[in-house]
Amino acid sequence: MTYAAPVTEMLATLRASGDLDGLLDETLTLDLVETILSEAARFAAEEIAPLNAVADRNGPRLAQGAVTTSPGWKALYTDWRTSGWNALSAPAAWGGQQLPGTVQAACREIWNAASMSFGIGPTLTEGAIEALIHHAPEALRALYLPRLVSGEWMGTMNLTEPQSGSDLSGIRTRAEAVGDGTYRIFGQKIFITYGEHDLAENIVHLVLARLPGAPEGTRGISLFLVPKFLVNPDGSLDARNDVLCVGLEHKLGLHGSPTCTMAFGEQEGAIGYLIGEENRGLNCMFTMMNNTRLAVGIQGVGVAERAYQKARAFASERRQGRADPAVKEPSPILAHPDVQRMLLTMKAQTAAARGICYRAAAAIDRSEQAGSEDERRQALAIASLLTPIAKAFATDTGVDVASLGIQVHGGMGFIEETGAARFYRDARIAPIYEGTNGIQAIDLVTRKIGQEDGVVVAALIAGMQAELAATPEEIDKRHLVEAVEALGVATRHLLDGLTGGRRDAVLAVATPYLRLFALTLGGIELLRLANLADGDAAPARRLLSRFFNATLAATVPGLGRSILDGNGLTPSEAEIALG
Amino acid sequence: MTYAAPVTEMLATLRASGDLDGLLDETLTLDLVETILSEAARFAAEEIAPLNAVADRNGPRLAQGAVTTSPGWKALYTDWRTSGWNALSAPAAWGGQQLPGTVQAACREIWNAASMSFGIGPTLTEGAIEALIHHAPEALRALYLPRLVSGEWMGTMNLTEPQSGSDLSGIRTRAEAVGDGTYRIFGQKIFITYGEHDLAENIVHLVLARLPGAPEGTRGISLFLVPKFLVNPDGSLDARNDVLCVGLEHKLGLHGSPTCTMAFGEQEGAIGYLIGEENRGLNCMFTMMNNTRLAVGIQGVGVAERAYQKARAFASERRQGRADPAVKEPSPILAHPDVQRMLLTMKAQTAAARGICYRAAAAIDRSEQAGSEDERRQALAIASLLTPIAKAFATDTGVDVASLGIQVHGGMGFIEETGAARFYRDARIAPIYEGTNGIQAIDLVTRKIGQEDGVVVAALIAGMQAELAATPEEIDKRHLVEAVEALGVATRHLLDGLTGGRRDAVLAVATPYLRLFALTLGGIELLRLANLADGDAAPARRLLSRFFNATLAATVPGLGRSILDGNGLTPSEAEIALG
Repeated sequence: MTYAAPVTEMLATLRASGDLDGLLDETLTLDLVETILSEAARFAAEEIAPLNAVADRNGPRLAQGAVTTSPGWKALYTDWRTSGWNALSAPAAWGGQQLPGTVQAACREIWNAASMSFGIGPTLTEGAIEALIHHAPEALRALYLPRLVSGEWMGTMNLTEPQSGSDLSGIRTRAEAVGDGTYRIFGQKIFITYGEHDLAENIVHLVLARLPGAPEGTRGISLFLVPKFLVNPDGSLDARNDVLCVGLEHKLGLHGSPTCTMAFGEQEGAIGYLIGEENRGLNCMFTMMNNTRLAVGIQGVGVAERAYQKARAFASERRQGRADPAVKEPSPILAHPDVQRMLLTMKAQTAAARGICYRAAAAIDRSEQAGSEDERRQALAIASLLTPIAKAFATDTGVDVASLGIQVHGGMGFIEETGAARFYRDARIAPIYEGTNGIQAIDLVTRKIGQEDGVVVAALIAGMQAELAATPEEIDKRHLVEAVEALGVATRHLLDGLTGGRRDAVLAVATPYLRLFALTLGGIELLRLANLADGDAAPARRLLSRFFNATLAATVPGLGRSILDGNGLTPSEAEIALG
Repeated sequence: MTYAAPVTEMLATLRASGDLDGLLDETLTLDLVETILSEAARFAAEEIAPLNAVADRNGPRLAQGAVTTSPGWKALYTDWRTSGWNALSAPAAWGGQQLPGTVQAACREIWNAASMSFGIGPTLTEGAIEALIHHAPEALRALYLPRLVSGEWMGTMNLTEPQSGSDLSGIRTRAEAVGDGTYRIFGQKIFITYGEHDLAENIVHLVLARLPGAPEGTRGISLFLVPKFLVNPDGSLDARNDVLCVGLEHKLGLHGSPTCTMAFGEQEGAIGYLIGEENRGLNCMFTMMNNTRLAVGIQGVGVAERAYQKARAFASERRQGRADPAVKEPSPILAHPDVQRMLLTMKAQTAAARGICYRAAAAIDRSEQAGSEDERRQALAIASLLTPIAKAFATDTGVDVASLGIQVHGGMGFIEETGAARFYRDARIAPIYEGTNGIQAIDLVTRKIGQEDGVVVAALIAGMQAELAATPEEIDKRHLVEAVEALGVATRHLLDGLTGGRRDAVLAVATPYLRLFALTLGGIELLRLANLADGDAAPARRLLSRFFNATLAATVPGLGRSILDGNGLTPSEAEIALG
């Protein structure tokens, strides 16, 4: 089977969690959004999804510095970008369609469900677009943005070096001012997604590097634009720049996506252009961090949805055992309570992750486009609080759901031709890149819940309580009420821990706290969906919300207790226990 | 790094959970057991582990019905069996060393940690040995057992057919009596581990098939021995039998282990010999079921230990960020609380799974060798109760721990050359084969906790309470006390549900109940380990037990609540929710 984007559920989630109703007007109608999603769904099903297995078996190849992507990949990308999909949310000034980020998020779920290997490429272009819009000088913007927005050119992010991954303070790539306003870049970067390929005429690398005499650590890192081909003032391509792909990684999954080792300046130095101010490169990255992290969270939702659909289809076809002993024929395994448990867990967790991601996308939108400075500031605080939760929970969901998907398939799930294993392999990168999920949890507890002395998180929790109070009595919400209570207690406990100087103890429970937060918020998002008065779909949504409440939300108070107790060990005791 | 079997911890677990002290005598001394484990550790580190990555990249090949295993694999197996490792626990009467099954379990952990692809092969031989000992006529035993025990010949289990996996009632392979005491077998079997290979001179297939006129369903299935080469009365090999490998699966992991499609009787019919009585084939399988299921659980422990060791080593070498802001140099990531949380979770869960598996192995031992019929019967009931828990929890642990192992490695974890991804791929089969973990959970709630009207499980829980009561006050056991309480309540709830006719509701919570049971029992096994007055290792064990108590055991009451509530949906509501 191919992939059928759940357009109805996505639209409903955009309304329930993504504030879509508030964005609608004469030009952006619900019908238009539905048309966009349906057309994306068609493109994904017909053009992207069929190539995903091909690319998994025939990954990109490197020869003489040039990467040839998988069979059909270049034509696919060309078709996709000329259909306008790359320009969905960029500003009209640069050729974009300026649609809300939530609609873009929904489409991104569709691309990634069809193929994570395909979906990740344009995400990096979008990050480059955002960085240039906010930080590049006008001349660079005019030269690069129209072609990045159209997708003729693609972008990359060059951050990681062998000695410097989660901690960027160790970056050694260096940049030297030439004197004419340009710089020469020297150094090696690893794990560069789509660092080299044949999909686009030019590749626009954003590269973190250090200027001579720059302060040590993260305050001495600058951001440079380094094009694969230099660009003439009229936009035509000039000479090849001194940047070369010198290796491709052999990965667990995401085989269709080239992961490159990039060498800058092996000859005379790669020509680069400063983006933003000197030594403020990480601040430029922060501008787009919420968006790119959320984009990876969306990958988790996409791969989870895909894995669920595949398992759901298998479970209705495969017959084993008799769920009803009175019937002589074997039942579809879908009728067995333990298989139902797996499928319900997959569907509920995916829908919860989607709700959280769309909510975060809406907050990012408001942080950029709300009418007043104050509204934008408040929205940014919410977006910054929600982003690590969305990234980590949705990507963990991708892995959990893909693993359950294999389990539903039984022995067939372990056979590569079935396809369920591919989702399990692909999904595994998302908890790692764009800040590991551990980094997300640390960000949440050390920077995000403490925003405005806890006022931001308190308001979010109060909103959950209000949602629960407004929920009709016939919807079971008991465990969710206790979950929100536990979230409030745990949050105050961690805030007290930080102000009380117990930083290590807080860090030790950061990950379970993020999970507690996500399970609670996810349950609320499912409740919002269940509360939509939405005809035919309402009964299924209410049942799914009830299941989430009775299973996943019910475990939250236990998580809360374990957070209050800490993990029982100091860091030095932990080292003893680890031998 | 290679793999270093944790011999000290394994010995301690044999004493704490595997009743080893009670088995020691003048011939079986603690020193002897330690020597055996140390020698197994040496063999695994030097000979097996280095070939695992090779086999992962160069799996077995099929040509003209013959499977050639990975480079070095045949010499490895020959060295392993001629060193006596295949004959460890078999009866002396058949050439075995008749060591306790717990010692065999510990060695099996070592083989599988070094390579699951290697470890699974001899496990199947052992299953064949057990079936023949208990059910084969004397002539077949005399002919086959000595060579199976020595490992000159290997065994297989041929159960699954395309339409018949978890539910064996649909088996269509047929057997016809020839009239001379032999049978002709016709049919196709799939997913046959080591169904064909070049490691041994002969392969002894145990095949489930249906006789003409046999009752439908599982009561009409018989068990046959079908050798690859027919065997002359003197034990020499005769003609090739009509059984052929017609395909090899392309799998997510376990690449070194050939998974075969086997065709029986494509010519004149494969010659087979009846094992046990006609139509009683599944009963013969039940005899060895506890042992083979436990063996798969042990695979989970092995791969988890291996993944932990690799991640632990990486975390002490890789430097990122500063755990102590006062120190200028980056810290080993081992010093960061969130990485410690991951490693402690890996180590604690692995140790708990090991404890449960060794306890189950000891019960299986007693069920075969205890002095009185009554003791053997009681031990069998305990073994039958513990086996599904050991199999499912330990194999889930393998997957969970391997996934955490990737996460500890960050980006490097996703690169195949690192090796962490291989454990994640290999581990994923263990929750599926030898009865999916869902089947284990269903077995636990529908057959095992109800043994003797709940007396068996009640006695086990009482034993846990006694263990807690005997634990010194300075060891934190608070959450475990509540966990045991929750286990008792949930168990009574499920037993009442079964007698009250609420079978579907019980089945819907079978998997979370098994997990609740395992987390509680695992916590008790860690406590036993911590209670061993054992010199240098004692502080680390107490800290690990404290960590398990504060984190994993603390979530048990929440699980218990969700079990009491059910999952909130009836089977028909679940189908509506799944759309």
